[in-house]
Amino acid sequence: MTQSKSSNIVWHEGTVGRKHRELLNQHRGFTIWFTGLSGSGKSTLSVALEERLYQMGCRTYRLDGDNVRTGLNRDLAFSPEDRIENIRRIGEVAKLFRDAGVINLTAFISPYRQDRDMARNLSERGDDDFIEVFVDAPLEVCEQRDPKGLYKKARAGSIPNFTGISAPYEAPADPEIHVRTGDTSIADGVTQIVRYLCTKGYIENELASAVDAD
Amino acid sequence: MTQSKSSNIVWHEGTVGRKHRELLNQHRGFTIWFTGLSGSGKSTLSVALEERLYQMGCRTYRLDGDNVRTGLNRDLAFSPEDRIENIRRIGEVAKLFRDAGVINLTAFISPYRQDRDMARNLSERGDDDFIEVFVDAPLEVCEQRDPKGLYKKARAGSIPNFTGISAPYEAPADPEIHVRTGDTSIADGVTQIVRYLCTKGYIENELASAVDAD
Repeated sequence: MTQSKSSNIVWHEGTVGRKHRELLNQHRGFTIWFTGLSGSGKSTLSVALEERLYQMGCRTYRLDGDNVRTGLNRDLAFSPEDRIENIRRIGEVAKLFRDAGVINLTAFISPYRQDRDMARNLSERGDDDFIEVFVDAPLEVCEQRDPKGLYKKARAGSIPNFTGISAPYEAPADPEIHVRTGDTSIADGVTQIVRYLCTKGYIENELASAVDAD
Repeated sequence: MTQSKSSNIVWHEGTVGRKHRELLNQHRGFTIWFTGLSGSGKSTLSVALEERLYQMGCRTYRLDGDNVRTGLNRDLAFSPEDRIENIRRIGEVAKLFRDAGVINLTAFISPYRQDRDMARNLSERGDDDFIEVFVDAPLEVCEQRDPKGLYKKARAGSIPNFTGISAPYEAPADPEIHVRTGDTSIADGVTQIVRYLCTKGYIENELASAVDAD
């Protein structure tokens, strides 16, 4: 019996699948992919959005440099090939989290359109599962903020291939959401994203309203 | 304000952390790491256990060859270095799922003690977060089951470095759980694991009992 059950299960999806997990969570698993220059506000925005979604009872997880570059991708540097592999793995992990029914937020510069599209194209449900958020602040603003002091180092020539200074940033042509953090507060940016999620049916309007009213 | 908030958050853990996610899920995030020969019943057991945990309302995710070898690790083959890297990445992804507050089950042969210990040692909470399950069936039994026909191919010499035939399997010296699937049904194996989880406080006794009574 063990054998037949085994040979049956090996070749089919497990009993508990994505839809079951989504049913338990009472929301879909999907990816919110933030992209933008260093200092544009990707991290801040994703942290604030996660907090808002958490308050609504959503299951969330945030992938960023802190937990990816120091772990899964610690064997990768910043060469063009390594940057591609970095985004490929993040895209694959995001896919696993979608499959787990978790709303996952990724906050990486992800400067190349082709790499972001690769991550998007891993989605079985197509665009429905993948929400690209262009976190858009002018380079001057990002450089003035310079929260990690990286622009200063890049200008001094001590960081090669720095996006926006010595390496290109390819802005999304048609992102699902465009947040202009040069003249939008983080709170308003979060509201903009939450409204999108409600309008498109990713999360329930009632949940969002209840939190708004707090 | 954006800048100060950003520079604050970049260097610290996000507002929503593992403990918040665990609070929402009402259980801890931890890893159940199945190890054993091909055909020993790792997949079957992990699928059946996930179903049981799901019925208790637990948030679970299962990592196995189907979703890892075809995605995140599709660049890896079966050389010794690639096997190590395969397990390293799985260990890192398991860590992310723990951090997400999800009970994650990994079902890979993972033949080398050193690699399994590497995965275990990624846990910030030490052994509490990592439950190694030795899925133990005699080689003869596994070879007789041969659900994927791999032993037959390995004996014919068409699969090099096949664990148990032409490559070693290092049995765990001191696993948290030892399931002898040679003479234990899958149902009993699941019960054995669930009892362990209850006894050690990973899941609530009441939840497990309610499902038992179904």
